[in-house]
Amino acid sequence: MESTSEKIIALERSALDRWIVMNPDGYLELAAPEVTYFDPYQERRVDGLEALTTLLAPIKGMQLPFTEPRYEMIAPKVQQYGDVALLTFNLINYARMRGQEESVLSRWNSSEIYRRVDGRWKLVHSHWSYVKPAVQPAQ
Amino acid sequence: MESTSEKIIALERSALDRWIVMNPDGYLELAAPEVTYFDPYQERRVDGLEALTTLLAPIKGMQLPFTEPRYEMIAPKVQQYGDVALLTFNLINYARMRGQEESVLSRWNSSEIYRRVDGRWKLVHSHWSYVKPAVQPAQ
Repeated sequence: MESTSEKIIALERSALDRWIVMNPDGYLELAAPEVTYFDPYQERRVDGLEALTTLLAPIKGMQLPFTEPRYEMIAPKVQQYGDVALLTFNLINYARMRGQEESVLSRWNSSEIYRRVDGRWKLVHSHWSYVKPAVQPAQ
Repeated sequence: MESTSEKIIALERSALDRWIVMNPDGYLELAAPEVTYFDPYQERRVDGLEALTTLLAPIKGMQLPFTEPRYEMIAPKVQQYGDVALLTFNLINYARMRGQEESVLSRWNSSEIYRRVDGRWKLVHSHWSYVKPAVQPAQ
């Protein structure tokens, strides 16, 4: 029997596997209507699946500016409180740029909050941020 | 009767009011033993109240490098699922540097996840990140 922890991590990995080849559908299919979202590129929190779809849908099918993308999910941890499961992990993205040796593209902190509705886990909040961005934000 | 939303926002504000004058005790008192934590300065997720205390306690009593600190909490939103409440907001920190006019110190995305235990809301996860850091992280 798969534990909740294993199940949540598998859901996240299935979305990430598609995301790294420029397909946001895995995340959009997991998201609940009331999903809220933060990433480093937005001026404000993004509220709701419609707004998130508008934001992420254009990524689909973009040309990858690298080859052989892969990721390492570091120390995924699930805190479960009844029908809410909070998944946190660090992520390192790797790829080959212009045929060169594999290098690190980016390092992330990730918080993904899932809620169980009618037996299915749906994403109700997602927060992506850079590990140690080199400088403070512009003012 | 105070709503859960009002209550959670008031708890967060009480911790922030102390935080901006270099007192982390508000957050440490709110945190649950199993709290997990991300901010832009750590290489990895911080796990547990003991580790968080070690990280934040030295801040206490540091000299403020500015005067008249204040913050603006933008569009706080609470998603409540039973005994779990997810608070998200953007935050802008302001202060006067060396007697000059007030300026923006930093802009944040914030996700604060609270869990109700024995009638008290405790912080089980906290994720702070910069809005639009000027550059990607060093590799």
